Amino acid sequence: MNLISKLLVFVFCLFACHPQIQTELFNVNDDGQWQKVSTAHRLSQFPKIHADGRVWFQFEAPQTAESVKLHIESTDYEMQKDTSGLWNVIIPGTDPGFQIYNFIVDNVEVMDPGCTPSYVNGYTSVLEYPAPGDEFYIMKDVPHGEVREHWFYSDITESFRRMYVYTPPGYQTDINERYPVLYLQHGGGELENEWTHAGRANIILDNLLAEGKARPMIIVMNLGFATKPGEVRRRSFNDGLPSTFEQMLVGEVIPDIDKFYRTVPDQKNRAMAGLSMGGMQTRMVTLNNLDLFSQIGIFSGGVITPEDVNEADDFKEKFGLLFISCGSEERAEETKANSEALREIGIENHVYISPNTAHEWQTWRRSLNEFLQLVFKNE
Amino acid sequence: MNLISKLLVFVFCLFACHPQIQTELFNVNDDGQWQKVSTAHRLSQFPKIHADGRVWFQFEAPQTAESVKLHIESTDYEMQKDTSGLWNVIIPGTDPGFQIYNFIVDNVEVMDPGCTPSYVNGYTSVLEYPAPGDEFYIMKDVPHGEVREHWFYSDITESFRRMYVYTPPGYQTDINERYPVLYLQHGGGELENEWTHAGRANIILDNLLAEGKARPMIIVMNLGFATKPGEVRRRSFNDGLPSTFEQMLVGEVIPDIDKFYRTVPDQKNRAMAGLSMGGMQTRMVTLNNLDLFSQIGIFSGGVITPEDVNEADDFKEKFGLLFISCGSEERAEETKANSEALREIGIENHVYISPNTAHEWQTWRRSLNEFLQLVFKNE
Repeated sequence: MNLISKLLVFVFCLFACHPQIQTELFNVNDDGQWQKVSTAHRLSQFPKIHADGRVWFQFEAPQTAESVKLHIESTDYEMQKDTSGLWNVIIPGTDPGFQIYNFIVDNVEVMDPGCTPSYVNGYTSVLEYPAPGDEFYIMKDVPHGEVREHWFYSDITESFRRMYVYTPPGYQTDINERYPVLYLQHGGGELENEWTHAGRANIILDNLLAEGKARPMIIVMNLGFATKPGEVRRRSFNDGLPSTFEQMLVGEVIPDIDKFYRTVPDQKNRAMAGLSMGGMQTRMVTLNNLDLFSQIGIFSGGVITPEDVNEADDFKEKFGLLFISCGSEERAEETKANSEALREIGIENHVYISPNTAHEWQTWRRSLNEFLQLVFKNE
Repeated sequence: MNLISKLLVFVFCLFACHPQIQTELFNVNDDGQWQKVSTAHRLSQFPKIHADGRVWFQFEAPQTAESVKLHIESTDYEMQKDTSGLWNVIIPGTDPGFQIYNFIVDNVEVMDPGCTPSYVNGYTSVLEYPAPGDEFYIMKDVPHGEVREHWFYSDITESFRRMYVYTPPGYQTDINERYPVLYLQHGGGELENEWTHAGRANIILDNLLAEGKARPMIIVMNLGFATKPGEVRRRSFNDGLPSTFEQMLVGEVIPDIDKFYRTVPDQKNRAMAGLSMGGMQTRMVTLNNLDLFSQIGIFSGGVITPEDVNEADDFKEKFGLLFISCGSEERAEETKANSEALREIGIENHVYISPNTAHEWQTWRRSLNEFLQLVFKNE
């Protein structure tokens, strides 16, 4: 949140904490410009966002509650009890995109019962805050692909595993068409469903396809955690040994996908990308398997360095696309410097720095939107 | 819970509330027979179920907490703080299947942060308790169908809507095969995803198909709530007028499904079934549209009466299957009496009473399992 916003919060709090104002705020009918947020579920009316950007949270605490707070963006906001016994707060707004929050009732953290939870190292309440200018992830009346829940038994991990597979519009009708495949990985805090939930990958690609800005493709999203029975998960991504995840992706997932879907099953038409931990996995898996993957996308997950390129087997001849991104509030300068260093050794690459965002979904939605416009276009 | 279980709880509580025992229970290593439940998420170790059926819940409350309770099956269990500050309780077990629960910290209800939440008129913690003898909904190493998230724009409701569509194993490869379609509806407390989450509809049909006990089919699951802009949802299912949901299902969903998927688009190969509110909707939609549907399944959602049959247009000639079910702790006697009354007027029908279950998922999982073995077999 910038300084002006913080000042507005301060002025607003002075105002809102006055009991008279508080009663007027929360017990009168609203002015018709409040709309329920998209992350509120069917039966909930809150949180609401006003046309002017303010967000109204409401919570029904037990009668014995002495204090209720909203915790969002590292800030605690005191909530006010209205005459019907409900606790309320209106804040001036948040950063755009997906924001984690919860309520604190006399020291006890509770999820918002009005919210559809998301998984971020456990389930949490989230607010989808509008982002003018970022309409690329808003659902529009365009042809929609499907997101398929696809189960398989993994002999390597000895477990049933689920992946989500996006198939583009036309997949059902153009039955002689074959498609390139992007393997897209979540970060260390998420599960296999968050790229199509918090990340909106399907909506982003639907919209790009409708505008002719991307090639129709299949996107395969797997759980990034994989262990053999009894194995403790290795956290190092740099020991050079193929992780169980890599063994499973290369040995089981890719053959399954190439058998089950109408893919173009070759290196030129196979991409891997990921965010954070998924970016680190993308780096390791692609460097170890340049005969399988030609297109590489790393979002907020480090970089491929000149040293990596020198150590890899024929990187320059084999790679087709190298895309690296992060938020402007992450390691943007290092990322740009690495890009220059790669160029100096003859490795063309794309860098995208998401303006005014950090290690968060808004960075990764934008990164995917940029990446999808470049991938599978360099033939 | 039966009397013996209740007695066991009582004896157990006498035992567990003794501080010495409590320390031994919660601070020693477990005996290797505790397993994390399937509803606990990736990073959570609790709740755990013992091989003998006991369930161990654990919760990290703030240091200031004076009392923490587990609320499950209408019962509050006091939790005990162990020496590391975590609150614990072990209960003898629950009824089989999907059980709602939460923790109560000094009057404040909180979800279990270790649980994957389900939607039951809002999100809640749930425990999947094993049900020996009910293996039909356990995932097995058989061919798996896919569950597809399918979006469309509804002109009738002026909104984007999502449905989930199950396609059976073989749908991808047997590209000249066409399939009958079951429209399957959730109850008043759920959303369009719960038949494949809490209900396990996809796993149930995968297992039946592997055993040759059901016909391959497509299952279409829509959100049962539909309103036009400005319309307040009508709660009556008996006014005889087609609801907005019915208009949308008949006017938009069925044509979309018959266009998009390889269906057999005729009355003989079209079924509708639903649970609770979805059963009431099934009754209304099928009675109003006997030229579209021949197969009818009503789970815990009332019955089709002899009066309905007399009022409907050529019911006897048009219907193919009438299946009505409920839990033994619901209106089982009335359901059986209605079945007899239908038979007396020449309407063959199937009644299924789920043993020892009430208005709950275990009833509906079993009902679906029975229904799927009968549907589309009367040609």
